[in-house]
Amino acid sequence: MNPVGHNTNAHAELVKEGIDRINWVDRHSPVLNGLVRTAMRDGSLEGVKIAVVVHLEAKTAFLASILADAGADVIAAGSNPLTTNGSVVEALRDRGMIVVSEPDGNHESWEKELLAAADLEPEYIIDDGAELTMRIGMHRPEIFKKLKGVSEETTTGTARLYAMEAAGLLPFPALTANDARCKHLFDNRYGTGQTTVQAVLRLTNRKMAGAKVAIIGYGYVGRGIAEYAKKLGAQVFVAETDPVRALEAHFDGMFVGKSTDIVRDASIVITATGGMRALGRPEFEVLKHDAVLANAGHHDLEVDVDTLAEMAANVIENRAQISTYELGKRAIHVLSGGALVNIAGGSGHPVEIMDLTFAVQGLGAHHLVNTDLKPGVHVLPKHVDDQIAAAKLSSMGIHLEPPRPEQEDDFKDWLTGIQST
Amino acid sequence: MNPVGHNTNAHAELVKEGIDRINWVDRHSPVLNGLVRTAMRDGSLEGVKIAVVVHLEAKTAFLASILADAGADVIAAGSNPLTTNGSVVEALRDRGMIVVSEPDGNHESWEKELLAAADLEPEYIIDDGAELTMRIGMHRPEIFKKLKGVSEETTTGTARLYAMEAAGLLPFPALTANDARCKHLFDNRYGTGQTTVQAVLRLTNRKMAGAKVAIIGYGYVGRGIAEYAKKLGAQVFVAETDPVRALEAHFDGMFVGKSTDIVRDASIVITATGGMRALGRPEFEVLKHDAVLANAGHHDLEVDVDTLAEMAANVIENRAQISTYELGKRAIHVLSGGALVNIAGGSGHPVEIMDLTFAVQGLGAHHLVNTDLKPGVHVLPKHVDDQIAAAKLSSMGIHLEPPRPEQEDDFKDWLTGIQST
Amino acid sequence: MNPVGHNTNAHAELVKEGIDRINWVDRHSPVLNGLVRTAMRDGSLEGVKIAVVVHLEAKTAFLASILADAGADVIAAGSNPLTTNGSVVEALRDRGMIVVSEPDGNHESWEKELLAAADLEPEYIIDDGAELTMRIGMHRPEIFKKLKGVSEETTTGTARLYAMEAAGLLPFPALTANDARCKHLFDNRYGTGQTTVQAVLRLTNRKMAGAKVAIIGYGYVGRGIAEYAKKLGAQVFVAETDPVRALEAHFDGMFVGKSTDIVRDASIVITATGGMRALGRPEFEVLKHDAVLANAGHHDLEVDVDTLAEMAANVIENRAQISTYELGKRAIHVLSGGALVNIAGGSGHPVEIMDLTFAVQGLGAHHLVNTDLKPGVHVLPKHVDDQIAAAKLSSMGIHLEPPRPEQEDDFKDWLTGIQST
Amino acid sequence: MNPVGHNTNAHAELVKEGIDRINWVDRHSPVLNGLVRTAMRDGSLEGVKIAVVVHLEAKTAFLASILADAGADVIAAGSNPLTTNGSVVEALRDRGMIVVSEPDGNHESWEKELLAAADLEPEYIIDDGAELTMRIGMHRPEIFKKLKGVSEETTTGTARLYAMEAAGLLPFPALTANDARCKHLFDNRYGTGQTTVQAVLRLTNRKMAGAKVAIIGYGYVGRGIAEYAKKLGAQVFVAETDPVRALEAHFDGMFVGKSTDIVRDASIVITATGGMRALGRPEFEVLKHDAVLANAGHHDLEVDVDTLAEMAANVIENRAQISTYELGKRAIHVLSGGALVNIAGGSGHPVEIMDLTFAVQGLGAHHLVNTDLKPGVHVLPKHVDDQIAAAKLSSMGIHLEPPRPEQEDDFKDWLTGIQST
Repeated sequence: MNPVGHNTNAHAELVKEGIDRINWVDRHSPVLNGLVRTAMRDGSLEGVKIAVVVHLEAKTAFLASILADAGADVIAAGSNPLTTNGSVVEALRDRGMIVVSEPDGNHESWEKELLAAADLEPEYIIDDGAELTMRIGMHRPEIFKKLKGVSEETTTGTARLYAMEAAGLLPFPALTANDARCKHLFDNRYGTGQTTVQAVLRLTNRKMAGAKVAIIGYGYVGRGIAEYAKKLGAQVFVAETDPVRALEAHFDGMFVGKSTDIVRDASIVITATGGMRALGRPEFEVLKHDAVLANAGHHDLEVDVDTLAEMAANVIENRAQISTYELGKRAIHVLSGGALVNIAGGSGHPVEIMDLTFAVQGLGAHHLVNTDLKPGVHVLPKHVDDQIAAAKLSSMGIHLEPPRPEQEDDFKDWLTGIQST
Repeated sequence: MNPVGHNTNAHAELVKEGIDRINWVDRHSPVLNGLVRTAMRDGSLEGVKIAVVVHLEAKTAFLASILADAGADVIAAGSNPLTTNGSVVEALRDRGMIVVSEPDGNHESWEKELLAAADLEPEYIIDDGAELTMRIGMHRPEIFKKLKGVSEETTTGTARLYAMEAAGLLPFPALTANDARCKHLFDNRYGTGQTTVQAVLRLTNRKMAGAKVAIIGYGYVGRGIAEYAKKLGAQVFVAETDPVRALEAHFDGMFVGKSTDIVRDASIVITATGGMRALGRPEFEVLKHDAVLANAGHHDLEVDVDTLAEMAANVIENRAQISTYELGKRAIHVLSGGALVNIAGGSGHPVEIMDLTFAVQGLGAHHLVNTDLKPGVHVLPKHVDDQIAAAKLSSMGIHLEPPRPEQEDDFKDWLTGIQST
Repeated sequence: MNPVGHNTNAHAELVKEGIDRINWVDRHSPVLNGLVRTAMRDGSLEGVKIAVVVHLEAKTAFLASILADAGADVIAAGSNPLTTNGSVVEALRDRGMIVVSEPDGNHESWEKELLAAADLEPEYIIDDGAELTMRIGMHRPEIFKKLKGVSEETTTGTARLYAMEAAGLLPFPALTANDARCKHLFDNRYGTGQTTVQAVLRLTNRKMAGAKVAIIGYGYVGRGIAEYAKKLGAQVFVAETDPVRALEAHFDGMFVGKSTDIVRDASIVITATGGMRALGRPEFEVLKHDAVLANAGHHDLEVDVDTLAEMAANVIENRAQISTYELGKRAIHVLSGGALVNIAGGSGHPVEIMDLTFAVQGLGAHHLVNTDLKPGVHVLPKHVDDQIAAAKLSSMGIHLEPPRPEQEDDFKDWLTGIQST
Repeated sequence: MNPVGHNTNAHAELVKEGIDRINWVDRHSPVLNGLVRTAMRDGSLEGVKIAVVVHLEAKTAFLASILADAGADVIAAGSNPLTTNGSVVEALRDRGMIVVSEPDGNHESWEKELLAAADLEPEYIIDDGAELTMRIGMHRPEIFKKLKGVSEETTTGTARLYAMEAAGLLPFPALTANDARCKHLFDNRYGTGQTTVQAVLRLTNRKMAGAKVAIIGYGYVGRGIAEYAKKLGAQVFVAETDPVRALEAHFDGMFVGKSTDIVRDASIVITATGGMRALGRPEFEVLKHDAVLANAGHHDLEVDVDTLAEMAANVIENRAQISTYELGKRAIHVLSGGALVNIAGGSGHPVEIMDLTFAVQGLGAHHLVNTDLKPGVHVLPKHVDDQIAAAKLSSMGIHLEPPRPEQEDDFKDWLTGIQST
């Protein structure tokens, strides 16, 4: 439609914007630039075909670039149709990487993109929600058998991999990056916590002080969001099915109850179960007028928007990323269509935190390639986790020291059988 | 350049976006829609010419609309060249209001806009930083003498009005909305605190947890920012010239010191003095590489960007609203050109808080029009402040009750001379 | 009763304990030892008769000692019958000061002590709750007329002095130490907040995390307690009659409501109104089983224990300072008999904070003696307040710097009439 | 020394005080009174000889009473010489239980008490720090072989049991109560956190706001203390040898560094490593004047007081539980002789939290008795943990609900091999 010249210009600007974004990440990634690049310098990733299937924005692009710099053949794909950034896609293509995803997609186009990635026959996958892994398993069984390893980003994907392992359906080693301490202790809690609250506030131009906020799910992600919301002055209500977690929520000062009870007075409701349809008809029926719903879990359908649409007389798009469902006299607002609000409605996790998460993923992929792991679910070795943390601390000028000999248990010799008394 | 049809369409869309934004405010403004509209129903604002000179975005537009609904002749102008929202401007014009400001201006165009507002000879001004009031005084002395009253939004403007009063230069009554408890206790602290931290995080995609953040100024605004930053996990450093405030900062757990000392290790520095050039050459010389500077005070030049530009070998615009100044090996990033970061780089204060602030401004203007105040600085009567707070509480279903008789001091009669012993 | 030898020994130990306690205060009082002692070195307090009527524990004793060191004739009396520390009394007597109070008193003995202090005809009073001032006014009118000045510690006493002034009943100057920023910003908020929560937890051996705590009153004291309770994980409910304060409580994340509503589910209820009978029959009727009641306000009868005793079938003293009232199937526990729980059930405010408060009181007394103030209520001059804060900061190695010339308002000359445009 | 009558009276009062204290615990222990008593009603503990070796105060006494009520032959002993409460000892003896410990002991008397407990040949031990278990192993090898099971309270004891298991020295099953989620998630974090900070503040009469506090160790206990100190306004410094934990401390807003660096400016230093001599000569040499040292870890010698005594010219006991060591011009204050400050200098963990911990211990003992576990270290089964949490929630009226069918993963069938695609 546009003349070529204009197009070229616009494309160059898009590429520049993507590069700017990736450079900003570069500036804040001491662990990826140090420890990870150094490890990959051994040449072991040379020519290895790796699919990177994570929300396709600048931080993911930087991980892809580091893998490419180490000689890997990278296939980049988005792990959600609503979180792919166009400028970053173009910047990666400009570098010569294969990107199967486009921005502004929908679930249908996204399925096609994942199959396109599958058909490129990756050896390894850095996956998110096990979305590509599962699709290869379902639709490309031959390629599935040839997969050499998967490193998984999320709680949701980890649960899926464990289910597959338990059912005897996992023919290759899978690393749960999510179980690395340098991942879930930081990314899930501080990363999602800060950015989810931030995105909800930005999209709605509202305040947290005094707001009644209901959180569905109190795993690491839900806890992080609840904590940030509470610190910003919200009265936080939590629904959780695990009794120990529910008790933790109570000790953390949250109001704990059933989801259908706690959402009644909430002005903001955020889902963080990692499962599906955490908010459905029973909750929709009791929500109050002008309640805002947002999702921080892996699946777009944690807020069951299909059911909500069925119940609504009308749906209005009245501000960027706010869809208003009219249910009788009540208006219910859904943010970012129910997609991960901190990515679709924000810029995703902070750069400094993804430096940790992607160090886990990068060294995880390196570990999969270089270690002869048995099929099944594995966790990153503790010493690698420790190295990442130490590298991060070191980049801030913090250096630890080991225990002194006199700090050992006085009874150590007896306890270990060296000395009898 | 564009064909007419396209233009019309684009304009209609812009107006729609502006209306959507204003409607979203409407939805969250129970005090303005209740108490304030009711008070204005007395017809006293009919035909009164009021200039509204506040950051020209949706909340301000809603205040302007309420004044217009009450029959006032409203002149709308932005209080800063970088914070005017184009869609909101068009929506107000579409309604028939006079708007003298355009988006994407600079200081030169803004001066002209303010003079244009002056030349429309407002009787009353709802001002911000006393920017229009001062300019009328300086450049339109005849109009200045005819001004009937000013209601002022900020600490900065309040200080200016007090200086004028002390110098015998204030020939009309001025209400310091900022001194109303329903304004500074909420807007300055929770509003600026939340949205400044939010804007800095959004523009930089960074985290607060563990960040070293330096705040210059510990008035209500600085304190709010410091508190929010600290709650989100930052290590907060504060410079303040008033010793009692500095001691408060210390008790609040902040590290207190001279500005040239506390900025040395900071990765984020935020100015909140309400004055000028809080960060200048002495600070720029000691900032560390990759420090981010942002401003939350009234003046665009609280970060002295002119001096920074002089010192820099190069300035790069590398992400939206991030200007990078290269000083030798150090890169210093300035957000939003030094303008109020929470408005220029965000959506301004939360709607629920501006419902309070603009209730003060609306009832303040109503008070100025209906009360025969002497020239000089005045504060909103306590009972009006109380009404606003009670209306806000009531909108949330919270109703207070008065003290019971037995709760009076047992010695009340003696203390008030009714009874002797 | 005891043989002389034993008595002497026991007495010597008591004196030693008192001295130890006072020395501990000495160690943590840089402002009193520096700024205050220096000011008093001018000899102006020589032979001046000053009654110090504040809770008679180690910090008060240290203030009394400093006044005595400066040559004043000090009369020490407790401001509450339940907060007088016996060891401290003996240490002061050992030093030669007149102490009219004894530990373990009751309201009757305390009234006698205050009259004894009155009959010693003090010229000045450092008072708490205006308790001695009022009693002199009521019962010793001749001495009242000769009083030269009062410096008052609390919100309660300040309200009483203002009431007397309004009724034309205040024939001498009164300084409201409480209104000094170095007093109420620190003592009322951080001091009472921390120590009240601490005392309640210590006496009950309970936790704050997840506890439902109701606070009656949201002035500086109530706010401090609410904030500390919330930070320790409590769900905090607030009753307050002033709408702006109630709105602040809401923004601070507290649940706001009527006292009879908010106490229903509370496991801990704390009064902080500074008035009387904040908790009475209407609240007692709805309290839940095992609720704990404590008071942080000036008056022992903020919890109306007389009414509670009437309602109870039985009262049991079952742990130190816990009285259990049995109301049908419910047990209601009152701490420290309803006296200020942080002093009667703890050690009172932190030493570092009383260094500020008593600097205000010491310099306040010095100011009263050296300045010819008119009868009526006065506030400590701002520059004295500033000096105290600066001295405190300086003792911690924190030195502030004044604004730089370029930080003045660019329009200062015009605003002050020096320059016209 | 005293006449018999007096003695009897005093003893009766002591017993009454002990009973009062235990009854207060009873009042706040819904899980012990419900779930635990119900489980023990099966008669399986009838005649079983169980040594309870935990800090001997009211909560421990209540656990002992419940075991006794279930028919067990209970031997009670204190796990630390400085934490045994005399009134509680007498109350237990009055009930007919064997108590081998006396209050006000020292390490020598304590060793004898433990051997006395050993010689009573317990079948099971509820141990703390593995103190009795280890002593039986060292000094009574024949009894050691006959031990049927141990349930261990602390991180320190757990480490010892794992060391023994690794060395092949553990001939019986040991449950690490500490690894139960209902124990370490609550007791270590909220319990020790709140009560340690509380005890330090009470013993010193100081404030947290603005204080510089150094914490040695950032496990659950250290983290809890750091969090509480920070919430109360302290600037918190952390030393930790594990890099991931150190990074967590950084993200939590703590200043992280080497112990010899972080203690330099601290006014309060608290040890929480669970090991020995965390503070020794290197730290003592750089501490500043008037620094306060306290310990929250298992061992009395986490602060190496012997070395400190060697270095000091003088040691003064100047307030209850404060020992002041004079090192040249510096005074260093050690609280509670270096014993667990929250128990020796306070009342130990909150009652509501020990209801959880002792539910774990009680059901742990019941599990050991009723299950045929192999020798080695075991963890309480997850379903028991869940039952405890659910019982606690239920006692507060909080009832959870299970996931709904539609909340299962849509791909569950494929993931578990039920359905192929």
